[in-house]
Amino acid sequence: MKLNAKFSEELFLTNETGRELYHKYAEHMPIIDYHCHISPKAMVENKEFEDLGEMWLEGDHYKWRAMRTFGIDEKYITGTETDFHEKYLAFAKVLPKMVGNPIFIWCALELKRYFDIDEPLTEENAEEIYQKTKALIHEKHMTRRWCMEHSNVKLVSTTEDPVDDLRYHKALAVDPSLKVRVITAFRPDKAMFLELPTFDAYLNELSDVSGVGITDFHSMLEALEKRLQYFKETTGTTVSDDGIPHFTWADYTEEEIETIFKKARANEPLTADEVDQYQSAFLYEMGRIYHRNAYVMQLHIGTYLDANTKGVREVGQSTGFDCTDDQCSVTSVGELLNRLTLAGELPKTILYPLDGTKIETWAVLAAGFCDNDTRSKVQLGAPWWFNDQQFGIERQFEACANLYPVSLSVGMLTDSRSFISYPRHELYRRVFCNYLGTLCERGEYFGSEKNLQEIIEDVCFNNVNNFFEFHVTR
Amino acid sequence: MKLNAKFSEELFLTNETGRELYHKYAEHMPIIDYHCHISPKAMVENKEFEDLGEMWLEGDHYKWRAMRTFGIDEKYITGTETDFHEKYLAFAKVLPKMVGNPIFIWCALELKRYFDIDEPLTEENAEEIYQKTKALIHEKHMTRRWCMEHSNVKLVSTTEDPVDDLRYHKALAVDPSLKVRVITAFRPDKAMFLELPTFDAYLNELSDVSGVGITDFHSMLEALEKRLQYFKETTGTTVSDDGIPHFTWADYTEEEIETIFKKARANEPLTADEVDQYQSAFLYEMGRIYHRNAYVMQLHIGTYLDANTKGVREVGQSTGFDCTDDQCSVTSVGELLNRLTLAGELPKTILYPLDGTKIETWAVLAAGFCDNDTRSKVQLGAPWWFNDQQFGIERQFEACANLYPVSLSVGMLTDSRSFISYPRHELYRRVFCNYLGTLCERGEYFGSEKNLQEIIEDVCFNNVNNFFEFHVTR
Amino acid sequence: MKLNAKFSEELFLTNETGRELYHKYAEHMPIIDYHCHISPKAMVENKEFEDLGEMWLEGDHYKWRAMRTFGIDEKYITGTETDFHEKYLAFAKVLPKMVGNPIFIWCALELKRYFDIDEPLTEENAEEIYQKTKALIHEKHMTRRWCMEHSNVKLVSTTEDPVDDLRYHKALAVDPSLKVRVITAFRPDKAMFLELPTFDAYLNELSDVSGVGITDFHSMLEALEKRLQYFKETTGTTVSDDGIPHFTWADYTEEEIETIFKKARANEPLTADEVDQYQSAFLYEMGRIYHRNAYVMQLHIGTYLDANTKGVREVGQSTGFDCTDDQCSVTSVGELLNRLTLAGELPKTILYPLDGTKIETWAVLAAGFCDNDTRSKVQLGAPWWFNDQQFGIERQFEACANLYPVSLSVGMLTDSRSFISYPRHELYRRVFCNYLGTLCERGEYFGSEKNLQEIIEDVCFNNVNNFFEFHVTR
Repeated sequence: MKLNAKFSEELFLTNETGRELYHKYAEHMPIIDYHCHISPKAMVENKEFEDLGEMWLEGDHYKWRAMRTFGIDEKYITGTETDFHEKYLAFAKVLPKMVGNPIFIWCALELKRYFDIDEPLTEENAEEIYQKTKALIHEKHMTRRWCMEHSNVKLVSTTEDPVDDLRYHKALAVDPSLKVRVITAFRPDKAMFLELPTFDAYLNELSDVSGVGITDFHSMLEALEKRLQYFKETTGTTVSDDGIPHFTWADYTEEEIETIFKKARANEPLTADEVDQYQSAFLYEMGRIYHRNAYVMQLHIGTYLDANTKGVREVGQSTGFDCTDDQCSVTSVGELLNRLTLAGELPKTILYPLDGTKIETWAVLAAGFCDNDTRSKVQLGAPWWFNDQQFGIERQFEACANLYPVSLSVGMLTDSRSFISYPRHELYRRVFCNYLGTLCERGEYFGSEKNLQEIIEDVCFNNVNNFFEFHVTR
Repeated sequence: MKLNAKFSEELFLTNETGRELYHKYAEHMPIIDYHCHISPKAMVENKEFEDLGEMWLEGDHYKWRAMRTFGIDEKYITGTETDFHEKYLAFAKVLPKMVGNPIFIWCALELKRYFDIDEPLTEENAEEIYQKTKALIHEKHMTRRWCMEHSNVKLVSTTEDPVDDLRYHKALAVDPSLKVRVITAFRPDKAMFLELPTFDAYLNELSDVSGVGITDFHSMLEALEKRLQYFKETTGTTVSDDGIPHFTWADYTEEEIETIFKKARANEPLTADEVDQYQSAFLYEMGRIYHRNAYVMQLHIGTYLDANTKGVREVGQSTGFDCTDDQCSVTSVGELLNRLTLAGELPKTILYPLDGTKIETWAVLAAGFCDNDTRSKVQLGAPWWFNDQQFGIERQFEACANLYPVSLSVGMLTDSRSFISYPRHELYRRVFCNYLGTLCERGEYFGSEKNLQEIIEDVCFNNVNNFFEFHVTR
Repeated sequence: MKLNAKFSEELFLTNETGRELYHKYAEHMPIIDYHCHISPKAMVENKEFEDLGEMWLEGDHYKWRAMRTFGIDEKYITGTETDFHEKYLAFAKVLPKMVGNPIFIWCALELKRYFDIDEPLTEENAEEIYQKTKALIHEKHMTRRWCMEHSNVKLVSTTEDPVDDLRYHKALAVDPSLKVRVITAFRPDKAMFLELPTFDAYLNELSDVSGVGITDFHSMLEALEKRLQYFKETTGTTVSDDGIPHFTWADYTEEEIETIFKKARANEPLTADEVDQYQSAFLYEMGRIYHRNAYVMQLHIGTYLDANTKGVREVGQSTGFDCTDDQCSVTSVGELLNRLTLAGELPKTILYPLDGTKIETWAVLAAGFCDNDTRSKVQLGAPWWFNDQQFGIERQFEACANLYPVSLSVGMLTDSRSFISYPRHELYRRVFCNYLGTLCERGEYFGSEKNLQEIIEDVCFNNVNNFFEFHVTR
């Protein structure tokens, strides 16, 4: 049997046209990673990695979750009683069984791009690869920044809470040795989740940091806007980040919102309808704030957060116990867009629905709210979280190009906590070029190579640079 | 790089068997376009087209919508301050960026089939192609009817409101030079949308036209049935057309419906449940009327109409601001079919769900209501609106043949406002033959060429001809 | 045209790697059919089949349903006025039209594997094939057991109601000539569907059989647990089978459940919320029972049972009039899993959602509830019912391997009433190997042949054997 015994540079490229397009136009484009969760503190400290275990298994809930499906003891996943070497070995043991799972090919890409290893990692060679990569990490001084620079990253946007003082971003901004521009997204989720018992305490903190006395819903918005302006002044950002779990648009009056706000602050019980009203008002008002401050509104839609509450209690939030809500409706988000459009205050918007099976209905929605004054005013984001893999990416191209010109897309982001996840941009570009090649080879697209080159360069780099007004030089 | 530089006659045909099947059996079949929105007045007047701009951009909300995603000024889309030449140039500029979008290949097919142009339209050659096509339009006297005859169309069904006097259809019926049979679908939407402020005025008009005094729900139905019979007498039609946006079946009593009807006529506010009750009753009673008058019931399900109300206010309804409702339930339409089945009054029915991501659940529903007295009594329609493209069509074959024999399908329709959209039948046939070829080549179907020929001829022509009892000669 | 004129041993194998993997590692693996609906009585009686008509058309609602889409008279489907020969001829007439439908390839596989016929069945050769197969049935004495043994089946699990006395299973257990191990699933549906008018009568029967006086909800559970233990003692089973039509999780108190239980027994009307509360409590308590008795919980989710009530009245339940509920929510089943997890009483669980279009959201859910003590504690089942075909199976691999390692799957089952449906395991294995081959050929998976062999043998046999603790020798 003629099996590939090692990593192939023709990964995902199943047709000649796609292959040439990728190697000629996409492969060497620089990266703008406009949404991720890496730590600015870690960038400031810029330590060398300890080993591949730390690189892979510190904070990566994708891998943790997959390890749990194999019934691996939690001590080898997030436990404190084992070190990264032991965790790495536990992980390596099951990796060959992850056929079809993106973790397999992500790991292969990372071994290839950062360590030039092109053999598959297995239980048998795990120790050897561990030692080899450890030596390379120290030989090449692979720090956090080294990884970013090695991957030709020009800009990254982290994600911070409005109360963050951005001290690390400030430090990075004045560091002449830093070759990557670092900004941050503004993520006001804690002001939206009014049912949390920490809501009042959070508002007190926000009040302190902003210098705005928060006495009602509108003074809270004022405080948030002050912080949003501070984020922009400090890092030059134009990026927001809103999480929308199950959400139902509910009409409201200003008085109702003020009453709900007071109840939430006093930790009084709220009805489901009151939560919907508050969140409708909150998202509407944040949309207006983004619009007048020239931010892009990023909506992450339809999470089923903390589905497994025992897991969350024992291991923590965002450690692999979230799922997908299958009932978050297009029409509720549609009504939000509609109200902002009627007010003439719809900001540029990117929709990231988590339920990838319904992606087409969201593409249709985005197209219905595009406007005559802005290129791709409302658009779909890259396939998010559970959809961030070959199948999800190809589906989005195939299904949604029909509904919304894919050449307008701002393209890929990692959404990652890892400093070596940049090959996901490579994966996306490979799938994109292969998709274009397929269209060409079945006669569905024809024209000049120049047209295709432009489309590829736009999706890989130019669109995101222009949409967010980053002004990064290629 | 070996890119196609021009239109390929092997478009979509990726396997040898599919290629042969298409060219041998599908390519030259005549067309029955049993559902579209072309203007009978335009057919009577039968003017030559002015230019390609008029052909493409008058009334085509698919193109308008796509142009808006590029941020093009509305004056080049629907504005009155520019002419079709300017609009055409604005459109041509972005067409090469519509990779993967059906508009790209529709335009290419139309350039090829009506003007024998097989190079791609770009910003560079836009003016040249404009002048060339304009000259051809006048040289060949390309009128509305010319386009239809050129495409081998044998029958078209327009769509009219019950109050329409069908004057143009009457004129066409007695015109000996007309080579295409023209009928119309009966579309009683305005009697279903009782929340509209125009409901009462509409009923007064219906009363006048039908000669039936409309005093209650049942006299309204009587008036509608009179008009439906008039449509059949005048054009020989057997085609209905019902639009069902978000719909929830709700039980009702006759008394409740009469009360709701009176409130709606008086423009009094209605609850959501009252609207559901009325629409349940309306669809049930219309189903009975279709059954006893031997009409086919066509249900267009799950639109999210006028999602962007600012766009609708400024540009108008059906101009590109509708979206897809993702929550319209199979079980509600199922209960409608169930009640009609229990009454022994279910007409032949075609289901067109707009949310293509759930197409399989609708195919299962259709099969569950097939009956022993009629071939394919309830069936899925061709992929509708946003789904009318290679991906949507192929998905429907792949997903639904498993659930409902695809050989029973009545096949393609354009649903279009354009006189040159008939190549969409070609597109559908190509995808269908390629699908059949794929099944043969992977061993999933085997048998004689004659079986495949029969299946192709049935889906392209015979099924629709028999199902609607059109009695068109091939 | 070079069409396959006969059955191909390369069915579904479109790439070289997949082809080799199938023939080398999957083709000859024995079968564990851990969920089906064959009759234990028929196994005890072990009659020779009468003819191919009986083999195919007695009890197969897939074929009945497909025949109705062709408008065939019910007398040739389930009617008593025709014999199996006539029914077979009616079926054979439409079979060539079932292109793309699994029935076509299932029949082809069954003709090939049981009768070595590799030509397609058509109207023309129907009588000839009828006589040929009839002769072979008698020549080879094709009994129920012959079919199972011929297909290398090592274990089957039927499905029985808790009140069943298992007399046939007992008889089979002591029959030394039986070469297949036979167990049964425990299916307590009748105790869950409290709205049925037969609820009280059923509980009386359950009370008699179990010897437990059923006076309230908890004594009903006690009776069920007694029967469940009897099922395990008698057949050694670890398999349960719960059907969940549209289901919404609803919180409840013990008092509320007891009140609802009494109302249901008295046949008093229940609100939709009361039904939800009862079913939430029922499934939660059954989960606990499965957990403490080391059963695997199998949840069949989202049926739209008896959609066509006229069909059900005239022909019966489970005769082809069921459809798919498109609104059964992931979050409701998620809350059931969450509560059981919090209690530390979640049994091993397999989820079978009927709405295949949303399969990914279920895969995500399953992964979120995996635990550190069990390999693949919660997992997706094989594509069920309407999804049990090439498209559904391939989609599940492609879509869900990304979300849940497919190498952990317990693999295929027939869920069938037929004794000759075992080639569906072959179909599944072919699609699986072809999927693996595709991954290898596009570079997405690479490694040793041994890894692939292990994965194939696990999914075909080892996983199901270990998960259910069947201890079958290969």
